[in-house]
Amino acid sequence: VSFRCRLCGEDYSFREPRYRCECGGFLDVPAGTFSAEATPEFSVGSIWRFKEAYGLPTDAAPVTLGEGGTPIIQKTIDGFSVLFKLDFLNPSGSFKDRGASSLLTYMKWLGVRRAVEDSSGNAGAAVSAYAAAAGITCTIYVPSYTPDGKVVQSKMYGSEVVKVPGTRHDANSAAVAASRSSFYASHLWHPFFVSGLSSAAFEIWEDCSAGMPGSVLLPIGSGGLLEGLYRGFSALKETGHISCAPKLIGVQASRCAPIHDAFRRHLDDYADVEAERSVAEGISVARPPRARAVLQALRGSGGYTVAVDEDRIIAAAKTLARIGLYVEHTSAAAFAAWFTIDRRDREDALVILTGSGLKETGTYGSYF
Amino acid sequence: VSFRCRLCGEDYSFREPRYRCECGGFLDVPAGTFSAEATPEFSVGSIWRFKEAYGLPTDAAPVTLGEGGTPIIQKTIDGFSVLFKLDFLNPSGSFKDRGASSLLTYMKWLGVRRAVEDSSGNAGAAVSAYAAAAGITCTIYVPSYTPDGKVVQSKMYGSEVVKVPGTRHDANSAAVAASRSSFYASHLWHPFFVSGLSSAAFEIWEDCSAGMPGSVLLPIGSGGLLEGLYRGFSALKETGHISCAPKLIGVQASRCAPIHDAFRRHLDDYADVEAERSVAEGISVARPPRARAVLQALRGSGGYTVAVDEDRIIAAAKTLARIGLYVEHTSAAAFAAWFTIDRRDREDALVILTGSGLKETGTYGSYF
Repeated sequence: VSFRCRLCGEDYSFREPRYRCECGGFLDVPAGTFSAEATPEFSVGSIWRFKEAYGLPTDAAPVTLGEGGTPIIQKTIDGFSVLFKLDFLNPSGSFKDRGASSLLTYMKWLGVRRAVEDSSGNAGAAVSAYAAAAGITCTIYVPSYTPDGKVVQSKMYGSEVVKVPGTRHDANSAAVAASRSSFYASHLWHPFFVSGLSSAAFEIWEDCSAGMPGSVLLPIGSGGLLEGLYRGFSALKETGHISCAPKLIGVQASRCAPIHDAFRRHLDDYADVEAERSVAEGISVARPPRARAVLQALRGSGGYTVAVDEDRIIAAAKTLARIGLYVEHTSAAAFAAWFTIDRRDREDALVILTGSGLKETGTYGSYF
Repeated sequence: VSFRCRLCGEDYSFREPRYRCECGGFLDVPAGTFSAEATPEFSVGSIWRFKEAYGLPTDAAPVTLGEGGTPIIQKTIDGFSVLFKLDFLNPSGSFKDRGASSLLTYMKWLGVRRAVEDSSGNAGAAVSAYAAAAGITCTIYVPSYTPDGKVVQSKMYGSEVVKVPGTRHDANSAAVAASRSSFYASHLWHPFFVSGLSSAAFEIWEDCSAGMPGSVLLPIGSGGLLEGLYRGFSALKETGHISCAPKLIGVQASRCAPIHDAFRRHLDDYADVEAERSVAEGISVARPPRARAVLQALRGSGGYTVAVDEDRIIAAAKTLARIGLYVEHTSAAAFAAWFTIDRRDREDALVILTGSGLKETGTYGSYF
């Protein structure tokens, strides 16, 4: 088994530590085999019930913190039945734990000792948590303007946090430069991060035994979760477990909507947009590197994109809290979009709530 | 079915809104029937799999946010295998959701429209979340010195937060006074809060099918969780599901250890102690009203208490984070105690991690 470049078709052994192809293209991993295994002891809800599906080396021992198996609950909103998958109830507080668990499992198998990553948000926290669980030393590069409070969690996990002067892009460059001597545990680039995210699709299928949702709404920044879901639902379809996969509805903030713009304009890659700061920080990605694959997944699923304004995002966060669901603005964006879609799609929708409201005490506190 | 006073034996109908007996004693609910039901749709991990056990009216419809079903993971520490139950992955970020789900289910069945509670911590957040889910208006009374950041979550859920001048006790008195016109949704007093907490015992039994832990370590403030676990394990023993219940090991901060003191001195009720401020805020309860029942449960289980110093609690919080488990100081106290107990008890222990580290960004931030 090996990585294969999506662009030029070059193969690389799993034993070679790299995050992308020499040509600059994304690497893929083979689709793996989908099968729901018996529950492993002490990991009832874990993503590892479906481990064959992630394409990992078969002798890799899971680096797990009990991620996945998050609840799906049903609520009645405006007379519609809506399902919510509470992915903010993952160990570090976001869906990224699915990808980090899979990626760090690969890295531990490879014998990696030092990792670098560039994210002050959920991905940085998730990679830090699983690096800690794997016993791998981790350095997180963040822009120098990052508030200290945002990286406390990563520091507690034991990561070194390095502030890089300049923009988000400069932090990225610093991580890439450091990857010459450390493994770049990139939530954006690494195929095992994305394949781990596909676990959410398997769980939705398993929990919705009485009938799959017709559409799945989720926030998209770089779009890794959407890619992962598409990968997962496609595997379920190919193996005959479902006859029809849900439409994937990707939600962006109007203030930063390069994929939404591209989708509407039938582009193959993200659109150049004037990005403004949004409360939905987790999806404020102006130049999403995986946009081509994300647009393909959106179209392949029969889905579409929605962009939502700031006031609607904030209102949705409050509405969710008022029914007991305390989530990040980024997650609330997906619910804000639900109010705007076709009645038919609203009727049997599932909304993925991706990140915990406990990470936004500062912003939410300013509302009172 | 009815409430029965633990002190004087008086019975009260479930239809009567009250939180304690006229004589001042605690009310009990009948033990219910233990049986593991088939998983209800969309609530895979929910405490409602065991709903017969909580003694609720049979026609009460669950007020659920997907609580319970939290992962148990295994780690090797100092050469020992230790189990951790990640109860901080409940919807509002703590184990209190188990009790709040059960209590608000009862309150909704009763037709309650307005609730009051007194807690700026996990209980306040949990009651607020489930009041929101139940559509019940909620007011939380907190001491006026409570930092604003601590009650943001409750406010987002829609609770009104009222700051009461004076001590913690004055906030309590305000809630009791308000309970003449509103239902006192007391995590301390209400029997349905405690019976909901017993769900953790059923989950431990179910996940540890290969062998029950010999001891369960948990933080005790008012001690409701310990009472709930004892109730749950006793039900499992009485119905023949287990032959031997785990020892319950209750952990307090040395700076506020009224139950630990009472246990060592063979008292029936809590000891008068000079309480000092501890980082483990969730267990800083100087006069725990349920202490008699908690001491009985401790002794009945063959367990004991441990008190841990501040520096050990802080060190344990850091150690846990360094293996990927980001929890409150209060939860870390239980792990700090693990290092101090007999080798025999350390060998097959389960530690309940009760609250999320994401609630303590401020304090943890001060460590860097």
